[in-house]
Amino acid sequence: MKPTRSVAIERLDLDGERRADRDRVVIEAPLQLRARGTPVATIMRTPGHDLELIAGLLHAESLPPSICVQADEDAVDIDLDAASFAGRGLLATAACGVCGRAAIADLELRAREIGADTRVAHAVIAALPDRLRAAQAVFEDTGGLHAAALFTAAGELVCAREDVGRHNAVDKVVGWTRGERIDPAAHLLVLSGRAGYELVQKAIMLGVPVVASVSAPSSLAIELAERFNVALVGFVRGATANVYAHAWRIE
Amino acid sequence: MKPTRSVAIERLDLDGERRADRDRVVIEAPLQLRARGTPVATIMRTPGHDLELIAGLLHAESLPPSICVQADEDAVDIDLDAASFAGRGLLATAACGVCGRAAIADLELRAREIGADTRVAHAVIAALPDRLRAAQAVFEDTGGLHAAALFTAAGELVCAREDVGRHNAVDKVVGWTRGERIDPAAHLLVLSGRAGYELVQKAIMLGVPVVASVSAPSSLAIELAERFNVALVGFVRGATANVYAHAWRIE
Repeated sequence: MKPTRSVAIERLDLDGERRADRDRVVIEAPLQLRARGTPVATIMRTPGHDLELIAGLLHAESLPPSICVQADEDAVDIDLDAASFAGRGLLATAACGVCGRAAIADLELRAREIGADTRVAHAVIAALPDRLRAAQAVFEDTGGLHAAALFTAAGELVCAREDVGRHNAVDKVVGWTRGERIDPAAHLLVLSGRAGYELVQKAIMLGVPVVASVSAPSSLAIELAERFNVALVGFVRGATANVYAHAWRIE
Repeated sequence: MKPTRSVAIERLDLDGERRADRDRVVIEAPLQLRARGTPVATIMRTPGHDLELIAGLLHAESLPPSICVQADEDAVDIDLDAASFAGRGLLATAACGVCGRAAIADLELRAREIGADTRVAHAVIAALPDRLRAAQAVFEDTGGLHAAALFTAAGELVCAREDVGRHNAVDKVVGWTRGERIDPAAHLLVLSGRAGYELVQKAIMLGVPVVASVSAPSSLAIELAERFNVALVGFVRGATANVYAHAWRIE
């Protein structure tokens, strides 16, 4: 299994140019860890060096070294008792299945595709990274924080939150909406970093139809956005941006 | 609790200048989540908007909304049954305690401070980011990958690994060492991104005396490096770098 994949994108330019093209994205895919046949963890990772990844995880968990065997491209077998993994939060991640399709099926049980036909102008999206940085009180200070923010479809900042963990920053924004009367379907989620699968999943669970990031999306993030009718925009830099899913939402 | 803290650092310059200074770093600290009094999760986060963070986490976990109360600056109480959290990998993280001191105590049970008096020239460290990028086969392609690499104290690349997850990239490097006869105490770990607590913890468990990153460290990463005799170098950019712990190792 290769670590990257070629995907169809639309390249946008503020000149109004709009061009179908292809881009390579990094693959994010689940690896199942099985202890003497019993699944004990599912790790989202980029394929490659899977046996080293598992050996390193065992070391990080202070578990004994074990013979690791690549059962197939999405599973590794180890010769340890499954009971060794009981109560280990780091490894015992949600058993979301052994392929991206299972991750999508899992989310289908918990979230609906975004029905609203919200559209956003590219000019609005192009301005968001600067607005997010302006709202980042702490970032300038330390260089160590991720940010996430909700904007209206017209580009007005609604809520920005920061955290050392990128998931936390999104969770803080989602948590903020719980106490407010806003319609998520009329908003965009903007990320200061890369758009991984979990972040796009959180946007879908919130009900936001557009996710924009200054950096690259992962393969699984694109698949989720495709499935749930979310526009996924990456590399929002200056006058250009790449649209990885549902480009019809970007005008 | 503030989201940043001022710490003492040494600023290095390839001219040979070396200057004691201060820098602000982002705070990474555990937040304990208690369901009707029972601790159910410890979340590493940047203090601030803790109630929103918990509300967002409950939403991400498809749990019902709950009244959240900030019990103290490191704990939030919610009105849900602790049983709701059983088997949830995302939330049930290692109960590493409720303060940075507890995280350090936990690591003291599993790792030793680095005894070796390994020192590294700043000129060697200054060259590492470019060498890491040269070794990153995939990054140039997608912009979506984190990298971690082991170098000798003389700056020779030993092993570089990439992954969509920064922890995975370090785990792959650590896993690689399991099959090799190398002395970790004579090596440096280089990170393409920020130096968070878990990454420095992995370096300590491996036994590496110097961690260098192109970006910012977190407060807890610095505390761990201090305690375990590891030099922590951040913002390695061009001719300059900041040393956040054990600057005597950098010559």
